[in-house]
Amino acid sequence: MTTTHSPNPSVATPLPFIRSELASLQAYTPHPGGTEGQSVAISIDRVDTNENPYDLPLELKQKLAQMWVEAIESNRYPDGGHQRLKAEIAAYVTESAGLSVGAAAGNEDGILPSQISVGNGSDELLRSILIATCVGGAGSILVAAPTFSMYGILAQTLGIPVVSIDRTANFEVDVTAAQTAISDRQAAPIRVVFMVHPNSPTGNALSATELDWMRGLPTDILVVIDEAYFEFSQQTVVAELASHPNWIVLRTFSKAFRLAAHRVGYAVGHPQLIATLEQVRLPYNLPSISLAAAELVLQHRLALLAVLPEITNERDRLFVALSKFDALKVWRSDANFLYVRMLGVENAELAMAQLVAKLKIHGTSIRHTGGGLRISIGSPAENDRTIARIGDLLGSF
Amino acid sequence: MTTTHSPNPSVATPLPFIRSELASLQAYTPHPGGTEGQSVAISIDRVDTNENPYDLPLELKQKLAQMWVEAIESNRYPDGGHQRLKAEIAAYVTESAGLSVGAAAGNEDGILPSQISVGNGSDELLRSILIATCVGGAGSILVAAPTFSMYGILAQTLGIPVVSIDRTANFEVDVTAAQTAISDRQAAPIRVVFMVHPNSPTGNALSATELDWMRGLPTDILVVIDEAYFEFSQQTVVAELASHPNWIVLRTFSKAFRLAAHRVGYAVGHPQLIATLEQVRLPYNLPSISLAAAELVLQHRLALLAVLPEITNERDRLFVALSKFDALKVWRSDANFLYVRMLGVENAELAMAQLVAKLKIHGTSIRHTGGGLRISIGSPAENDRTIARIGDLLGSF
Repeated sequence: MTTTHSPNPSVATPLPFIRSELASLQAYTPHPGGTEGQSVAISIDRVDTNENPYDLPLELKQKLAQMWVEAIESNRYPDGGHQRLKAEIAAYVTESAGLSVGAAAGNEDGILPSQISVGNGSDELLRSILIATCVGGAGSILVAAPTFSMYGILAQTLGIPVVSIDRTANFEVDVTAAQTAISDRQAAPIRVVFMVHPNSPTGNALSATELDWMRGLPTDILVVIDEAYFEFSQQTVVAELASHPNWIVLRTFSKAFRLAAHRVGYAVGHPQLIATLEQVRLPYNLPSISLAAAELVLQHRLALLAVLPEITNERDRLFVALSKFDALKVWRSDANFLYVRMLGVENAELAMAQLVAKLKIHGTSIRHTGGGLRISIGSPAENDRTIARIGDLLGSF
Repeated sequence: MTTTHSPNPSVATPLPFIRSELASLQAYTPHPGGTEGQSVAISIDRVDTNENPYDLPLELKQKLAQMWVEAIESNRYPDGGHQRLKAEIAAYVTESAGLSVGAAAGNEDGILPSQISVGNGSDELLRSILIATCVGGAGSILVAAPTFSMYGILAQTLGIPVVSIDRTANFEVDVTAAQTAISDRQAAPIRVVFMVHPNSPTGNALSATELDWMRGLPTDILVVIDEAYFEFSQQTVVAELASHPNWIVLRTFSKAFRLAAHRVGYAVGHPQLIATLEQVRLPYNLPSISLAAAELVLQHRLALLAVLPEITNERDRLFVALSKFDALKVWRSDANFLYVRMLGVENAELAMAQLVAKLKIHGTSIRHTGGGLRISIGSPAENDRTIARIGDLLGSF
């Protein structure tokens, strides 16, 4: 097919209504999906996006399918208020943080639905937070690299300055450098600090030093604590939210809860900040079936989360196995992935890129990011293959 | 339950990290849904959000449910590239605009997948367009009231100035006022103009005067043509996109295609602008099942859109019936709703608010917006009840 009459972006001069600063931005690379880029279609172990390796059980899928057919009208807009899901999330967050919800004493320390906002993945919540605090020159954000790339990417698309500092040798945020960065900013002061608990791609939960530093931050700086991997780490700052109105916790149903296909994330924070996020979000941000799916997995959480010990045991098995390779440095992880770097090669970045490409050809997809390799924990069989294939390929370096 | 330990937003001083300008913003009011606010739960005719009154046929719902159970892994992220859906949308847009796709002559005028971006409803695309063009002081937007409120709301959340002009007596954009507004802006010049084809809530498609004015706009102003109701109006500017790189068309699957619950919209425009929207959007903005649902309704479009003549005939029947009431002024519509104003009452806004409230109590939900009443076309039985109930209630004014 020829396309003679169609505009060709590669030869065009920049369209004058597009912000010039966007031209230099690098977008997030979504999951390539399946066998794209493969010359021969083989089954791929997808251990590159930190998903739970297991789909929902068939009976839950059938239950949701039946709800969709019988109870959801596809022609009608979804519930834009999310009240029932918020109530269920609030109860889960309260329970999983070990907060008391005394029937006699009243809901003493529990999280309330008014402290919950639900988004199209935590990505949408991140964007809403940035819009609520920083756009139009109102502020900058602070990130500590390596970390989840979306914080910086979303900020840059909104024209928000990103201040990036380093982490220490064990991947803690360098709080001295962070403090200096905050003190140094006069124009567009740091308004939001992104902390990740545990961090991706490095797998470490927040340390006592990092937590102490966060507790001492001034109240005009919002601290976002991304707990996407909470169910694996079982470490959370939720109990401290009541004493820190400038903290907000992000969670997701995409990891432990097996709903990556449905795009549901949530934020837990001060009701006033939550009200602002609700004001900023798209009014119908979640499809009806995504809302129903999130409610369903919360109702069946005991059964669904029962697989987590297998995953964390597998993580520790993979840690031991990969640590035996002299060519690899492997770090302990509080999440469902491991962070690895190659040692003793001349150009480590190039070598790791080659290893990732070769691994994919052999049927295992991992992620090269933040100066290292991030390997998700799959099923035991997938992990066996990950270990064997990495072992085979390391010989060629 | 007491909540003594929980922060109370109503008594708190403003959180200092929230942008002060957000405090004065009014959010979009989502569909209240069902019987909320009713003391007695009765069946409500929901003719307030311009949905198609019919759900998907049962066999299509079952087909999608089966795909979800058997072919979609809920634990895996969706396809972030949308290539297959984009190709199907491009074919539909080409076909429905009457563009030639000659097999022998090549794809002469057809729309290509590279001219399509898919969003979480057109709301997400609107936000991406605003981010791509106007944030951080890069520009202002021009809207003509009354019109769809989301343009202004999304712009204001992003700190983008909104210039609002009036429409003429027949609800065309006042192009003289528009031209003056464009010439007058020195700081933050008008960068985007929102045209609606047909307009909501007034129902009129773009006139020859409006189209001529759009054709003459300078190429550094982006013209967004929102064709959410295209399938009802059968009027589109798609054939002119090739000659206007500064035009972009928005469409949705939420209206004629009956997928409001699934949140899928799309943009058709210059590949370079589309590439920017793809860069700006959230990487996994659409759930797997939403992508599958959009593909499914496109494949069955002949059957699904066969109901549209009934809806447009019903619209014309409702127009005739409502026009018979002396207390109402009714306008002709190119969409699946009618715009109505009350005549001969002292305080028309108050009277219309009362009429909407009373109608809801009697079981019909319509929308009071833009200085009038917007009444969606429902099923014939719903429309019969709309006419009868309005007739009954008008006697009390």
